[in-house]
Amino acid sequence: MSTDSTFDSRVFDVTGMTCGHCKAAVEEEVGAVKGVNLVVATPATGKVVVEGTNINEAEVRAALAEAGYQVV
Amino acid sequence: MSTDSTFDSRVFDVTGMTCGHCKAAVEEEVGAVKGVNLVVATPATGKVVVEGTNINEAEVRAALAEAGYQVV
Repeated sequence: MSTDSTFDSRVFDVTGMTCGHCKAAVEEEVGAVKGVNLVVATPATGKVVVEGTNINEAEVRAALAEAGYQVV
Repeated sequence: MSTDSTFDSRVFDVTGMTCGHCKAAVEEEVGAVKGVNLVVATPATGKVVVEGTNINEAEVRAALAEAGYQVV
């Protein structure tokens, strides 16, 4: 039994995204997570919308960290 | 006769570089300009140091624009 939580749609608040390159980096990393069909990162607001099926939250957080950004 | 000015070493002041991705984008584009041996972009200061041999200034400015940044 896994204790990891999963979701189909969630908005993460992320610090440090400053430009279009950051947006692209986040969308690429999070987009590679299993189950993710859509990810939209908005640097101006720090919001990262993630949608798909049975997405593992820990994997999304790891992908954001990998891209170099911190979830608040 | 060309009216373009050339240089071997110059520092450009550039606006809009906000992060490491910006630094990489600028260094990649400007580094591809003919004659450029070294380019160091520093987002915190907006400085882009360009060194090499007989570098065409207009080409450097075009490369910075291509990367999405404005010379001030």
